Formats: sequence, C-alpha cells, structure tokens
Amino acid sequence: MLEIEVKARANHQQVKELLAGMGANFIGVQHHCDTYFNAPHRDFANTDEALRIRSVDGRSVLTYKGKKLDTISKTREEIETDVDGGNARSILLALGFYESGVVKKTREILKYKDMTICLDNVEDLEEFIEVEITAESDIELHRKQIFSFLNELGIGEEDSIRTSYLEMVLGKKEGK
Amino acid sequence: MLEIEVKARANHQQVKELLAGMGANFIGVQHHCDTYFNAPHRDFANTDEALRIRSVDGRSVLTYKGKKLDTISKTREEIETDVDGGNARSILLALGFYESGVVKKTREILKYKDMTICLDNVEDLEEFIEVEITAESDIELHRKQIFSFLNELGIGEEDSIRTSYLEMVLGKKEGK
Repeated sequence: MLEIEVKARANHQQVKELLAGMGANFIGVQHHCDTYFNAPHRDFANTDEALRIRSVDGRSVLTYKGKKLDTISKTREEIETDVDGGNARSILLALGFYESGVVKKTREILKYKDMTICLDNVEDLEEFIEVEITAESDIELHRKQIFSFLNELGIGEEDSIRTSYLEMVLGKKEGK
Repeated sequence: MLEIEVKARANHQQVKELLAGMGANFIGVQHHCDTYFNAPHRDFANTDEALRIRSVDGRSVLTYKGKKLDTISKTREEIETDVDGGNARSILLALGFYESGVVKKTREILKYKDMTICLDNVEDLEEFIEVEITAESDIELHRKQIFSFLNELGIGEEDSIRTSYLEMVLGKKEGK
C-alpha cells in the first residue's frame, strides 16, 4: 500500500475555517509520541527509510516506511502492525537497532473526500498540515488531487516540505 | 523475563497417563506455524539468538529469544508482542531480515504446579515434551525442579535436548 502524502506549514486557525466552509468532517484528536529507530546494518538517514513505534492514546503501532518514491511529495511504501510498545522496543534494541529520536505532537484529523487531513502541532516546532491518500497505485494522479486541494487552502506546491518531523526536531537540537 | 525450559523426546501416550495420575491440568491444544528469521547483520545460527513469528490459531506473535544462558537447559531471555503476522513479516523482510525456516507443530498444553508442560508433535520430527518455568531469576533452582519433575516421568537429565526444532528440521532437510 502507498501513502501519498504532502506536508506544509499552515496556520491552523485559518485552515480550519476554510475546511469548515468546505464541509470537511472532523474525526478526532490524537496525541502521538513517536520513537524512531535506526538500524545496525544501514543508516536510515542515508537510505531514506524510517522505523517507528508510535504510542497513540494507549495503543502502540510499529511502522516501517520505505524510501520516498517521487521527488515532489512524501509518497512511500508504509507497513504497520499493532504491537505491545514496550516489548517491541525491547526486541528492536536486542536486535541491535537504536533510538534516533522522539517526536511528540498533537494531531487533529479531518476527512474530506478520499483525503485524510492532519493538523499537526509538533513539540518544539510549528503548526503543519499533512494531506494523505492511501492507494495501490497512481501516485501522480493522487498527488495532483492533493495539491489542487491544498491550493484551495492557500498553500502552493512550493510550500511542500519533504523533510520529516524527526529531521526537523534533530536539526533544531543541533542548532541548524 | 527468563524462560527456564527443558526439552526431551517423549512418548506422549506414556507421559499423558503419568501426568493424569499426578493431577496435571489440561489447558488446551494449539496449532503452531513458526516462521524463523535470520538477520542481515549477524548470523543467529552463530549468536544463538532466534527471531520468530508464531501463527497460532489465528493470532500472531513476534518473539525474540536471546542466547542460551546456561549449558544444561534451554534457558534464555524471551521478549514477545502480538502482531499482525503478514505485516510484521513484510516489515522484517523490508529491513533485510530473511526467512531461515518454518516449523509446524501441534502442542498440547498442561499445567502442573508452576510448570507449563508442552507435548509437541512436530511435523517431520517426533514427539517431544517441553517443560517451562517463567521467572525473574534463580535459573539453577528452577532447572532442578524441572529435572526432578521429568524424573517422575522417566526422563533423565541425559535425555535433555538443547537443539531447537528449527535446527532439527533444517538438519533433517539437509539429510543430517
């Protein structure tokens, strides 16, 4: 399954008013604590992969993300499974994986047509919007649909950010 | 948590009669399909670790087993988490892990005092008994307790097998 995803900085107050006008459905709020791991046998910072345990309101999910599949959006293969968070972490550490960083955020989720809209407030960073479509194929078609939707919110293709929250948080820590 | 475990070949019919006489409690029967994985960065055949996805009657469990902690029993650290079996397998393969073998067995489980008794009928192999105690410490004390119990079933310390089912199945395939 592909996750076709575009991210951009956004003023949540402004965006929410526009979304309400469009009739987007509010789904809920989640509190994420994302722990990222790096591998002993290859550096995910170079291979552009990600391995994460997300703790979200009492539930834990292990997610693998493959490298990005196009140069414009954040589209990539994504595989996930529910886990016991503490034990999955212990298994990864026992296998030689190690923690590369933690990202904490509050996510408001909305649905509009076949798009999932996430309004992310990331600890130590700013406010962001992520728009996702999950599909088997047709990256370009879905990416166009997302950018056309973002345009209606006043966000252009040039505002798209492909840097991950983890990279931003680590960059900020290093004073970049 | 430690899994203090002893395994031996056993005639199930004979053992079951003795267990019934002792008043052991029958818990249930499980059908296991165990897929073992090896790592890209170290060979578990050398490090004596194991990484397994067990599919058991519709449920899947990912288990990591550390190297054996004594030279007599199969005692080792064991960490596990429920997973979505198919997705956990895909994540392991994406990370560079690869399948090393599959072991299928039917397991009858009984409880006697603080011991779990597994009567395993392994596909392509014979009938076995495994006796386990889960504990935080005191390997030697618990191991003695297990061997004393096995003695009552006519199984001596010299009958203990430390070779894994996976090693036996792979050995048989290679005609060893």
